[in-house]
Amino acid sequence: MVQNQAKYEKVINYIKENILKGDWPIGSKIPSQRKLAELFGVNRSTIVTALEELKADGLLEGVMGKGTIVVNNTWTLLATSPPPDWNETASSNLTKATQLGSVEGSEEHQDHFIQLSKGELAQDIFPTDHMQQVMMRLAGSLEPFGYEEPKGFLPLREAISEYMNRQGTEVSPSSILIVSGALQGLQLISAGLLYRGSTILLEKPSYLYSLQVFQSAGMKLLGLPMDDQGMNAAAIKKHYENEQSILYTIPCFHNPTGILMTEERRRELLNVCEQLRLPIIEDDIYRELWIDGPPPPSLKSLDQHGHVLYLGSLSKTLSPGLRIGWIAGPEQVIDRLADIKRQTDYGSSSLSQRVAAEWISSGLYENHLSFVREQLEKRRTKAMQILDDYMKDLAEWNVPAGGFLIWLKLKVKIPYKELYSKAYQQGILLNPGSIYTEESVPAIRLSYGYASMEDFEKGIKQLREIILKNR
Amino acid sequence: MVQNQAKYEKVINYIKENILKGDWPIGSKIPSQRKLAELFGVNRSTIVTALEELKADGLLEGVMGKGTIVVNNTWTLLATSPPPDWNETASSNLTKATQLGSVEGSEEHQDHFIQLSKGELAQDIFPTDHMQQVMMRLAGSLEPFGYEEPKGFLPLREAISEYMNRQGTEVSPSSILIVSGALQGLQLISAGLLYRGSTILLEKPSYLYSLQVFQSAGMKLLGLPMDDQGMNAAAIKKHYENEQSILYTIPCFHNPTGILMTEERRRELLNVCEQLRLPIIEDDIYRELWIDGPPPPSLKSLDQHGHVLYLGSLSKTLSPGLRIGWIAGPEQVIDRLADIKRQTDYGSSSLSQRVAAEWISSGLYENHLSFVREQLEKRRTKAMQILDDYMKDLAEWNVPAGGFLIWLKLKVKIPYKELYSKAYQQGILLNPGSIYTEESVPAIRLSYGYASMEDFEKGIKQLREIILKNR
Repeated sequence: MVQNQAKYEKVINYIKENILKGDWPIGSKIPSQRKLAELFGVNRSTIVTALEELKADGLLEGVMGKGTIVVNNTWTLLATSPPPDWNETASSNLTKATQLGSVEGSEEHQDHFIQLSKGELAQDIFPTDHMQQVMMRLAGSLEPFGYEEPKGFLPLREAISEYMNRQGTEVSPSSILIVSGALQGLQLISAGLLYRGSTILLEKPSYLYSLQVFQSAGMKLLGLPMDDQGMNAAAIKKHYENEQSILYTIPCFHNPTGILMTEERRRELLNVCEQLRLPIIEDDIYRELWIDGPPPPSLKSLDQHGHVLYLGSLSKTLSPGLRIGWIAGPEQVIDRLADIKRQTDYGSSSLSQRVAAEWISSGLYENHLSFVREQLEKRRTKAMQILDDYMKDLAEWNVPAGGFLIWLKLKVKIPYKELYSKAYQQGILLNPGSIYTEESVPAIRLSYGYASMEDFEKGIKQLREIILKNR
Repeated sequence: MVQNQAKYEKVINYIKENILKGDWPIGSKIPSQRKLAELFGVNRSTIVTALEELKADGLLEGVMGKGTIVVNNTWTLLATSPPPDWNETASSNLTKATQLGSVEGSEEHQDHFIQLSKGELAQDIFPTDHMQQVMMRLAGSLEPFGYEEPKGFLPLREAISEYMNRQGTEVSPSSILIVSGALQGLQLISAGLLYRGSTILLEKPSYLYSLQVFQSAGMKLLGLPMDDQGMNAAAIKKHYENEQSILYTIPCFHNPTGILMTEERRRELLNVCEQLRLPIIEDDIYRELWIDGPPPPSLKSLDQHGHVLYLGSLSKTLSPGLRIGWIAGPEQVIDRLADIKRQTDYGSSSLSQRVAAEWISSGLYENHLSFVREQLEKRRTKAMQILDDYMKDLAEWNVPAGGFLIWLKLKVKIPYKELYSKAYQQGILLNPGSIYTEESVPAIRLSYGYASMEDFEKGIKQLREIILKNR
């Protein structure tokens, strides 16, 4: 099988190369299956499979009475080759995550699935009525809008500044850059401030492992252990490598473990980073989703010397569809990032920025957050009960103090790939723990924020059965 | 002066390096001005200037009774160093364009300037009433929105598909990717399909020279001559370098020259590119702004074999603030780009996508285009008259058949840097031709689309005086 696989790939590469070099121009007939089989010393079935793949890719086409001909030799050829300049980890992760359909924003036509892991609030938490109100109000006072200021719509930056100040993190509007979600924030930081070969220290597991943003730019992820207080700050010194390192952390309701970093740990972390001159990215997009009580102060608010770049977002609290997030940090840094942002997409949607500004400055956002917290508390209670009912003997988990993520650590040994594909066949979508590390880990990221609690129960019950059958 | 400049930079680098290495930690006092002056063998004034710059950058602070102390050593230090991994051309272009405030989306607080070059439609062409209507309608039927499908909101892709089909360019919804403007489209193509070291063949001058998108990814721009039919297609063969080349063109109302490529030239271009297997990016964002008559068929519509990736946008016709554009191309290519887009920002604003879909599918967009064309025709007539009045002896220009750009070639020799800075001092913003090439060229990109015609006349009149005084 391995040998067949290798031969099959040889055939594919041979054909692609001949097309690329122009030896087989568009419209030309490629050699017969018999000849190709002879050339490579393989069965005709191997050739047929290879040709089928190239046809599906849009490079070849079977034409009645003419045999197989070349139909494309430029963009499609580029698009079916490995991504240029990406390291292997990054492109294999991309494929992995895409195939599993398990990354935020990737679920096309998956309405019929039970989403046990989706990192988004349920549609019944979406504030349709108030969103309508905001849009009507905005329409009523609409003025022409064009390209925005490089840092984003000023009234939105002012609203965010006031909002963060009330939360105890003092940030001026000129120290804020509006971005199209926190992911874009990371992209901009990667493109504008970091070097290829930089090391990113981070929690292990971490959401960041599921992204290509740093890895595709040639950076190395170095995971540090966590306990129930958050990232192990003492471990940083041991792992710290060089002046080009930075640290990435999700201190509030960490993705994927749900852990809330304690105030003591935050101070310790900041202290260590200051000593090592290690810049920090604080991804704080879950902060507002507290259930048991407001989280400790942000790292940014404790930071006296501009060590922290802060990421905020409306995606997890209001709607990911707005694509509104922000970076707060030293003004010189924000200026640089604004420049890069302008060179990337000329700024975020004016409409989204106006809608977001209206939500925050009117106070509707804060009201909505109270509602979200109530909903999450109810859902958490129910989810814990369901897990107690069906998973006690099979897994361990944390009770998150906020957010909607549960890190379900399985106590039984089972073949994980089979687990996920069986679940998928039964209409259950799961994010395997391995997306969030570099290794295979016996864990699943669950979310009680998206599926209805009836679906959640149904899904967990089915999951139990799959585990029992396959262990 | 050159020597002083070099010494001054040495001082700055010396201080930055000491901060970076941690030899001078935060809160520490740096050596006295006298000591630094001795160390470098320079006047104290040179040291003072260097320290002032580092203070303005946020790295140092003067503290009463304590001297000058270090206040930041991480992000700010990164942000005040040259961008990592950018080649010099790219970063110097960035600075150049930013300083001149002459790139789309960079004009902050410039309401009091006369914008003679701005690449955007005037506010009085913005369809405020209809935009209100569309938003009201949308609000009335609003449903919860979250992350969109990877290729973008399906009704928008369907609307664009139908729209392009009516224009003669057949594209299915699954062959369309919604992006946040054509610039992001270029970013995605650069990140997902092209290799570092690729050569981009393009018109010279070209809008692309003013961007960092390809150059910062290590690609080389190779400008080809133009005539009044468009890019010189025959020159491609002479300049064609290797299999990793691609071609970028703006065939309709080219930016910055305004030239419309003829149908004959389009066919010739496509032919040459097919022979060389040279993939084409067709940037067609000005197509709808025709005045004298509809443009020839798009390259994409003439293309039988997937050689062309097509860029469309609503930025130049409806509003740049929507941040809605699209890429159309072979489905496999669009799939790849959609993957990259999702990894970049999880898709474009749901609100903007819904508003755009409503505009196009309701027919309001086509009505608006008629209005835009009428306005542009009036503005063009007036602009030509103003140029005839004030520039006949000083410059040459084309009469654009559409769009809003004029490439004003000066016939007199004058120091261009002075020209632009004098104009700036008098409240006139100009895009110098040098932004659009790698050389200094005696040309200015004018736009009759943005400024009021009164301001346009005032600006051109002043420009005449500045030229006369400085030649």
